[in-house]
Amino acid sequence: MPKENTPKEGTVENTVDFEFYRKIFEEFIPFHKLLGFKLESVEQNAALIKIVYHKDLLGNALAGNIHGGVLVSAMDSAGGIAAMTTINMRADKIATIDIRTDYLSPAKKDNNVMVEAKVQKSGNRVIFTHIQAYPEGQPEKILAEGRAIYSVKRKEANQ
Amino acid sequence: MPKENTPKEGTVENTVDFEFYRKIFEEFIPFHKLLGFKLESVEQNAALIKIVYHKDLLGNALAGNIHGGVLVSAMDSAGGIAAMTTINMRADKIATIDIRTDYLSPAKKDNNVMVEAKVQKSGNRVIFTHIQAYPEGQPEKILAEGRAIYSVKRKEANQ
Amino acid sequence: MPKENTPKEGTVENTVDFEFYRKIFEEFIPFHKLLGFKLESVEQNAALIKIVYHKDLLGNALAGNIHGGVLVSAMDSAGGIAAMTTINMRADKIATIDIRTDYLSPAKKDNNVMVEAKVQKSGNRVIFTHIQAYPEGQPEKILAEGRAIYSVKRKEANQ
Amino acid sequence: MPKENTPKEGTVENTVDFEFYRKIFEEFIPFHKLLGFKLESVEQNAALIKIVYHKDLLGNALAGNIHGGVLVSAMDSAGGIAAMTTINMRADKIATIDIRTDYLSPAKKDNNVMVEAKVQKSGNRVIFTHIQAYPEGQPEKILAEGRAIYSVKRKEANQ
Repeated sequence: MPKENTPKEGTVENTVDFEFYRKIFEEFIPFHKLLGFKLESVEQNAALIKIVYHKDLLGNALAGNIHGGVLVSAMDSAGGIAAMTTINMRADKIATIDIRTDYLSPAKKDNNVMVEAKVQKSGNRVIFTHIQAYPEGQPEKILAEGRAIYSVKRKEANQ
Repeated sequence: MPKENTPKEGTVENTVDFEFYRKIFEEFIPFHKLLGFKLESVEQNAALIKIVYHKDLLGNALAGNIHGGVLVSAMDSAGGIAAMTTINMRADKIATIDIRTDYLSPAKKDNNVMVEAKVQKSGNRVIFTHIQAYPEGQPEKILAEGRAIYSVKRKEANQ
Repeated sequence: MPKENTPKEGTVENTVDFEFYRKIFEEFIPFHKLLGFKLESVEQNAALIKIVYHKDLLGNALAGNIHGGVLVSAMDSAGGIAAMTTINMRADKIATIDIRTDYLSPAKKDNNVMVEAKVQKSGNRVIFTHIQAYPEGQPEKILAEGRAIYSVKRKEANQ
Repeated sequence: MPKENTPKEGTVENTVDFEFYRKIFEEFIPFHKLLGFKLESVEQNAALIKIVYHKDLLGNALAGNIHGGVLVSAMDSAGGIAAMTTINMRADKIATIDIRTDYLSPAKKDNNVMVEAKVQKSGNRVIFTHIQAYPEGQPEKILAEGRAIYSVKRKEANQ
């Protein structure tokens, strides 16, 4: 239960129960099933997910690159899980406000992609996250980098 | 040869052959097939696509909203098709540089979503697009709004 | 008191008193004075400001273009004023969450620049705006286009 | 002549001559003079600038916060300098395509602000940068974080 790197603001009431998050992520979200996203790990303020490669994810059958939308989808989902670690899951609600993604390199076929999200700041009303996608095993080779912002409605926020 | 609304810069050498674009969009891009995207129309500097609703697109089985990544994926694809109408398809190449999406309202289940992209400027090296998503039949109800920028390598650009 | 185009959500309690906004904009904000920004008009959900050209705004003395930061500054300010028309100014508070700007064309020297902001949606917690910059008298020639999102703390939000 | 951390692509023909950059930054750009920006350091793929506090930069005389536009202006300029270190300055040209900034915390009065830009990728046509602003002496306290993309026209790009 790593609580050392809690964000500067925000109330952290939940502990990180991986199986709980995995179930939400992989079983309750139909779109994650369709695309084959796996939740690899969660810790306070961070989440790591895996895009398991299959050819239905290709954006171009000839060039053999994964569609950019697959990356953004995973990035939004990873940011959302990371953001969820900073709220009271039984009482609070979050929603994505916006997401911005830079495509640095194409995601080549036959490779799984890892998507890593970190909460940069969890405030009373807004949670800022930072997200990177890279080929499995090559964290230094950034494929896409983005930022997503989530609105949070905290039940007991004194604001 | 609709040249009235050509962008301020850029050479327009192609005419808009809907069946050509439809084939690329719906048949050569596996991810579009997986998600059920349909190309509705294309004209010089613009494209309209339809996200045909099915429950695998849901981001939350309980709340019944389409996953935000579905919208961004369609927005990137629509912007790309619109951008393609401004290049020489046999000689030039485009790639998405970045995409930014604001989520204004959740996309409710059971509704198809229309995604409309327009080229705002097609320059020698960069193409700027503007994209909106709305429920089929309700163009005034914006679900998501975004901007995507494409890099273009024009074969004969005199620059 | 134009209330026809109120946003879909949000409580509108204030009327638009131009002189009130002009005073805040031009007199209480030192940075606006330094840059010579003028508030041209305000209406419910919209604001128009003018960047009065002077050579201290140039980003490059040789090329003769206004610095991009001047445009973004004016865009953030215009979006903020537009957003303010949707809140209770005595009770509520707003802050910019993020701003994204595309630079379409350089802003040439010797020309004033108009910056026009519109509220696209004013929700209980987040206000979305859309902003365009163009040379005075040439609204069809977009120099920069952006979107800014404001966080709002509404005192009496029923949420 | 630190060339170890050159970007993955791009030709690096220039060495980093601080005085050359300082002159361009502080003396040839009128807007930098108006705002009092100082170039602190430059190295291959990176630049650090200082916003020297003065009260004309305030966005709100009462609250005492620096205007967000000051931060974005400095961020665009810092990214531009970092990007310039990856091009042939005598032959190539760059222009900002877009910039996106998240405001994490207000920049309080009486404090100088440091703005640090790093090139993440310098390609043949596009340069991606990452930029952070923080109070002088407090690099861990991020005030604003952004990404800017620059278009580059390389004279001898083999592409």
